[in-house]
Amino acid sequence: MFEIETVARSREPQPGCGPLTEPPGFGARPLRQQIFERIRALGQASRVQLTKDLGISPASVTTATSELIEAGVLEEVTAPPAAETTRGRPAVALRVRPGRRHVLGIKLSDRKHTGVIVDFAGNVVASEAIERVEGALALDAILDAAEQLVTTLCARAGLARAEVGALGLGVPGFVDAELGVVHWSPILETRHVPLGAALTARLGLKVLVDNDANLVTLAELWFGVGRELSDFAVVTIEHGLGMGYVINHRLYRGARGMGMELGHSKVQLDGALCRCGQRGCLEAYVADYALVREARTALNLTNRETRTVPILLESLFDHAKAGNGAARSIFRRAGRYLALGLSNVMNLFDPQLIIISGERMRYDYLYAKETLTEMGEMMLDTGRPPPRIEIHAWGDLLWAHGAAALALDHLTEETVGAAREVAP
Amino acid sequence: MFEIETVARSREPQPGCGPLTEPPGFGARPLRQQIFERIRALGQASRVQLTKDLGISPASVTTATSELIEAGVLEEVTAPPAAETTRGRPAVALRVRPGRRHVLGIKLSDRKHTGVIVDFAGNVVASEAIERVEGALALDAILDAAEQLVTTLCARAGLARAEVGALGLGVPGFVDAELGVVHWSPILETRHVPLGAALTARLGLKVLVDNDANLVTLAELWFGVGRELSDFAVVTIEHGLGMGYVINHRLYRGARGMGMELGHSKVQLDGALCRCGQRGCLEAYVADYALVREARTALNLTNRETRTVPILLESLFDHAKAGNGAARSIFRRAGRYLALGLSNVMNLFDPQLIIISGERMRYDYLYAKETLTEMGEMMLDTGRPPPRIEIHAWGDLLWAHGAAALALDHLTEETVGAAREVAP
Repeated sequence: MFEIETVARSREPQPGCGPLTEPPGFGARPLRQQIFERIRALGQASRVQLTKDLGISPASVTTATSELIEAGVLEEVTAPPAAETTRGRPAVALRVRPGRRHVLGIKLSDRKHTGVIVDFAGNVVASEAIERVEGALALDAILDAAEQLVTTLCARAGLARAEVGALGLGVPGFVDAELGVVHWSPILETRHVPLGAALTARLGLKVLVDNDANLVTLAELWFGVGRELSDFAVVTIEHGLGMGYVINHRLYRGARGMGMELGHSKVQLDGALCRCGQRGCLEAYVADYALVREARTALNLTNRETRTVPILLESLFDHAKAGNGAARSIFRRAGRYLALGLSNVMNLFDPQLIIISGERMRYDYLYAKETLTEMGEMMLDTGRPPPRIEIHAWGDLLWAHGAAALALDHLTEETVGAAREVAP
Repeated sequence: MFEIETVARSREPQPGCGPLTEPPGFGARPLRQQIFERIRALGQASRVQLTKDLGISPASVTTATSELIEAGVLEEVTAPPAAETTRGRPAVALRVRPGRRHVLGIKLSDRKHTGVIVDFAGNVVASEAIERVEGALALDAILDAAEQLVTTLCARAGLARAEVGALGLGVPGFVDAELGVVHWSPILETRHVPLGAALTARLGLKVLVDNDANLVTLAELWFGVGRELSDFAVVTIEHGLGMGYVINHRLYRGARGMGMELGHSKVQLDGALCRCGQRGCLEAYVADYALVREARTALNLTNRETRTVPILLESLFDHAKAGNGAARSIFRRAGRYLALGLSNVMNLFDPQLIIISGERMRYDYLYAKETLTEMGEMMLDTGRPPPRIEIHAWGDLLWAHGAAALALDHLTEETVGAAREVAP
């Protein structure tokens, strides 16, 4: 399976005489796109601030912003004057023209599917959620659910489907965002499904697909902490465990587009069995399903027990609080492994902030003092303060908003980035 | 130790109205520096290629390269004409003027200290290694060794110390590169040592300090595979285990500068004791010292046994090949944990290439078919080919060359990047 090449000791690299090959992925985003994205991230920004933030000349900013205004995607607003410039003409800032285009965002998950329509500036225009039964679905059922959401959302926003620029779709699992292929997902019955192409064929819309943890990270980047921070991690704990990572204001998916699978990083040789089919994945110790399968043992439940996952978890948590030793040990172990997983994020990425995202109840055990102590004991001893940790207990709407951001990202590139940059 | 902030569910992020804060680290490198670094990475490059690679206008490239030639850091060379342009004037390429400045690079390690002097284009002008006894050293002993190397190297290159622009220094352990502080290193007796400042005071030279794995990664970036690849990982296995990671042609140290500590990521709760003082670090299963401490048991050696680490390892390896079951199990376990560590790199970073760097002998057990199979079993099942793995068995000279690259990086910024960019 692996080809390992050993480079002989004698082949010392030589400076100054390498082949003139063209490296992949070196091209920077066009200046206009950088400017546009910066303005959307900040809400609004002056030309002076753009010059400073992006390290480019005032003349380049003036040219590019004029083009963007002419293209109808930016507009000028009068900003409140800064303290040191109370005299003279009022400061002018730039912001995204919200009505320019609309996009859809959908999050598919175990218990419900959620969707939004947002305008070009990222404001939510309509939202909708549909309940579903747990378990993996056939591709057709996924397509039906997505179409149902799209139809409802468009009606609610008063938009024809053709007026929507693109659809962003978030699913849990291993997603090749570039190809729109879902290699594995707990909500899909089969592997290697070309979900993007199938949904495009069904809806007649450009569809972008990504891992749902990446999309909640995009939501934080565009509409949340990304306004203030350049580098941060988002760890999502739901039915599974995911991660997204932002480097220098951009989502980093790994070099080949499918990295950051913290939930499937291995924390134990020959460890617990994971939904993905492998052993020792962090997710197999921390996620809902991992707790639930031990709950059956701790609570002495039969295999015919049919309560839903949230109700089972709640019952397990109640037993733990009431002093059930087996139930406590389940949360204790999950907490210790979560501490291990988060300390690995710290030791590898040294982020400014780790956001833990998902529903509130799941993290009560994280507050245990022992768990936090343990995390400290597994973090590099550098004498520096640890990275900040925040818990964002947002619902599926935020995830759908992130899916819309993925579609906006595509639309921005198409609308703003495509035009050749004008030479100064 | 940790402050965890829980953000209430009601605080949904709002698009388009965030505070106009200035994010840290957003400023891009000046254009002139980007151009200069691209040329050094490629050896030489035409203006047309720079326009294409960096996504900037021909006029900007012309202006910036003229300034760099005028500043004496670039020069024109006649490139062999490309096939499609055999007629017309010969193609002109740009390269770094090598004699412009010189820098020193030193790698400190367990068994010897190695140093080089390189010119501005990265060519090695002189090199030197001094043997040392194993074990942690006092700060003064480290300063003495570095000064001895600097004196010898300058004499050999015919340069006065004042003619050297900067010194890059690589040490194993936890290094705050920005502050030049070594928080922990197996070669230093104490923690939190301001090594950069101490060596600057001793030598009267600007000193940059970094983790040695980052420096071997810089060497690969500047003088090795970095000419062809934008994103790759370098995993170093020596007395310890380190990692460096390149994203879009730049070394990524993590958001706060001390990430990528793969050797101290935890692969087992309450696991084997690591030199860093914590338990369950990958390094504590894979590095030399981890094998050596089990070798005593496997080979039934007394505590008075005094053979050096390389000789002990060689003996252990001979016993394993001869069928000693205990010796085999040591390599087998190390191989399995290495497979786990590398699969985590793949699952988190999804790199184009993983380079395993260090001395050859240590990786023989990696070639075991079981180990490779195991790595495949711990890698995400995506149907894609796994990332390429290369073993680069280079010696300490390459690491010192990387330390010189760190100094060059500093000098480049000082010489090339400092000047304000001219408005077009």
